[in-house]
Amino acid sequence: MKQKLVLLGFGTVGQGICEILLEKKEYLKEKYNYEFDVVAVADFVYGNVYNPDGLDIPLMLEQANAKKKFTKDVVDWDNIKLIKECNADVLCELTFTDLKTGGPAVDHCRAALEFGKHVVTSNKGPTALRYQEMKALADKNGVKFLIEGTVCAGTPVINLVDGPLAGCKISKIRGILNGTTNYMLSEMEKGMGYDEVLKVAQELGYAEADPTGDVEGYDARGKVTILANIVMGAPLNINDVSCEGITKITSDDIKKAKGQNARWKLIGSVEKKEGKVTGSVAPEMIDLSHPLAGVMGATNALTFSTDLLGDVTIVGPGAGRIETGFSILTDLLKIHKES
Amino acid sequence: MKQKLVLLGFGTVGQGICEILLEKKEYLKEKYNYEFDVVAVADFVYGNVYNPDGLDIPLMLEQANAKKKFTKDVVDWDNIKLIKECNADVLCELTFTDLKTGGPAVDHCRAALEFGKHVVTSNKGPTALRYQEMKALADKNGVKFLIEGTVCAGTPVINLVDGPLAGCKISKIRGILNGTTNYMLSEMEKGMGYDEVLKVAQELGYAEADPTGDVEGYDARGKVTILANIVMGAPLNINDVSCEGITKITSDDIKKAKGQNARWKLIGSVEKKEGKVTGSVAPEMIDLSHPLAGVMGATNALTFSTDLLGDVTIVGPGAGRIETGFSILTDLLKIHKES
Repeated sequence: MKQKLVLLGFGTVGQGICEILLEKKEYLKEKYNYEFDVVAVADFVYGNVYNPDGLDIPLMLEQANAKKKFTKDVVDWDNIKLIKECNADVLCELTFTDLKTGGPAVDHCRAALEFGKHVVTSNKGPTALRYQEMKALADKNGVKFLIEGTVCAGTPVINLVDGPLAGCKISKIRGILNGTTNYMLSEMEKGMGYDEVLKVAQELGYAEADPTGDVEGYDARGKVTILANIVMGAPLNINDVSCEGITKITSDDIKKAKGQNARWKLIGSVEKKEGKVTGSVAPEMIDLSHPLAGVMGATNALTFSTDLLGDVTIVGPGAGRIETGFSILTDLLKIHKES
Repeated sequence: MKQKLVLLGFGTVGQGICEILLEKKEYLKEKYNYEFDVVAVADFVYGNVYNPDGLDIPLMLEQANAKKKFTKDVVDWDNIKLIKECNADVLCELTFTDLKTGGPAVDHCRAALEFGKHVVTSNKGPTALRYQEMKALADKNGVKFLIEGTVCAGTPVINLVDGPLAGCKISKIRGILNGTTNYMLSEMEKGMGYDEVLKVAQELGYAEADPTGDVEGYDARGKVTILANIVMGAPLNINDVSCEGITKITSDDIKKAKGQNARWKLIGSVEKKEGKVTGSVAPEMIDLSHPLAGVMGATNALTFSTDLLGDVTIVGPGAGRIETGFSILTDLLKIHKES
């Protein structure tokens, strides 16, 4: 049976997943017997559209690319009405992350789950702030709440733990969870000062005009909270996670580390000790012989400490239109396979 | 329903998986609803035993540990009769690898598959030499032929590609597939010469008395062949893979690499170009900024080049009793989940 999707947000990730689905249509059908229709999209720039038999995605991509509003299948339903009343099986929640309140995404997810629709999301808001509530709601309604895209884009993290690492107990997770700050630290090693590097990162689009979320460690803190809740099963709140960014790291610190065969990294970590789970974000000097030390640029990486395999590290992209789009595809395929 | 297992080989890996199964019995039942009985074991040192209601594993571990033969449930059936006539659902083929002929393991796997039993194996012989035959036989009889343990012990490789990376196309795989040679190259960097390092590796049990299989690259070549067949779907033979070991690497080469911000690694690689798949094993100078360069000691690592995620690297153990034992557990859980 075709999977029917409603997309909330038609920005970078929304367009990314649509491009992947269109390009891989035949391959997905042949290899995984997976077929889909995007039946509804809601976007505050391009408008809300609905067609129970499937929308005209190529046209919508074209219009979004030209910064024009959608013209076909337009409805005057608000987001919540669209989510509840459309015939989709799965909500893809792809609006912007708000780590303070969770934003409208919380209401979107709640509406979908209450109406028996699966939720797949790359939005850290509902996941970092309300995971336990969302999971309980999903369980109650016999659907899934899947969130691979909230940590390290499409690099397998949650699905690695749930799938190939099943059977291992994980006692510690440590990693590089924010690509912007890792890029900045990598560039500082080449000789630039903090302020100069920040400016370059902003010009390249890695850092936003207000870089606080990245450089103060807040983005990494959201991801640490998600990992604590999902991988460790601990109901940690975002404010339980101690948090220090990279703003105090100087060129001198970078040089000193080099002299000690080490390198500064902004490390997010979750640890279970005597049954208690704690989380933290802080810059650390990592010995050059550790797999995390070699992870440069905007790349992300996570090391899982397990009882049966010792340390297992995964390294991959931490952002990107197609890379995050893939995280949505991977969760859609999971629903398809297990439903 | 309880999964019933027959184990061929009760050496390092056979004892490892039994220890894991015993220790995690309650956890596996609670978390994955997984229950098992080991009903048959065949080992050329300890003997062949069978009990359709489950063997006394703690006693057998004790006897093996004391280098004594099994005394309970002994049968005078040969291996093939045991595999065919026992009431197991799954054969765990854990005998020693023979990369020249495949050894008796080939007959063991064939017998199990023909009699409708799944096969889970860490034995590179049948997998590197006969994968296409085994897979066809498994498909014909509606069972699985699973081989996570043949590459990088329990570090997820095959199951990573099949599961969390599903939907990505993989065009290239490059990695450190032999822990012994990686340990030797790591130690040479600290100042020892090739002959001295080899002696230490032999004393530590990393390298065998005849180290040819490791240092000439044959072990890595077996794994490259497996990856080409399974991940790339190409019917490559082991002799199609070009192969050069580390025997010609001198202390001078190691020093020179260091001066160029690089490091020698024995790299196994599989590449698809214009529809054609090629495989090779050879020492390469790897730039220190590459994730594979930081992988030291007996650790293994693989980088997958994908269409949607770019490069994804996994780093983990390449050997070990419990680490390889886990590869068997992960495949047993896969059969349990998907059957």
